[in-house]
Amino acid sequence: MTQQTYTVTGMTCGHCVASVTEEVGEIPGVTDVAVDLPTGKVTVTSEQELTTDAVRAAVEEAGYQLTA
Amino acid sequence: MTQQTYTVTGMTCGHCVASVTEEVGEIPGVTDVAVDLPTGKVTVTSEQELTTDAVRAAVEEAGYQLTA
Repeated sequence: MTQQTYTVTGMTCGHCVASVTEEVGEIPGVTDVAVDLPTGKVTVTSEQELTTDAVRAAVEEAGYQLTA
Repeated sequence: MTQQTYTVTGMTCGHCVASVTEEVGEIPGVTDVAVDLPTGKVTVTSEQELTTDAVRAAVEEAGYQLTA
């Protein structure tokens, strides 16, 4: 198991959190996604290391941006 | 046909707009719901006059507040 925290901008409400959680949760190997709305921190737990590109693609699919 | 405009607070994004549109649209007789996110104005077109209570209940069901 590995865990990584990303920062996502643009989330404004619980619906946004749900969208990001759903899309990131669909990345193969992801077992948990925890979003903190006020800070935009998204902590992803997965069976193997994820590429930042995979996480970025999921976040953008949900309609938000990954910083850096 | 009658049209009435209400002000809803708490909507922050397109998901919020979709939730309000869906709930208000389920009120019997409603034929159109138009939401302007920046102002919170919700314009409801319906076959007959709606009670404010009915609209308020739908807005609250979606998780938002009707002003006044």
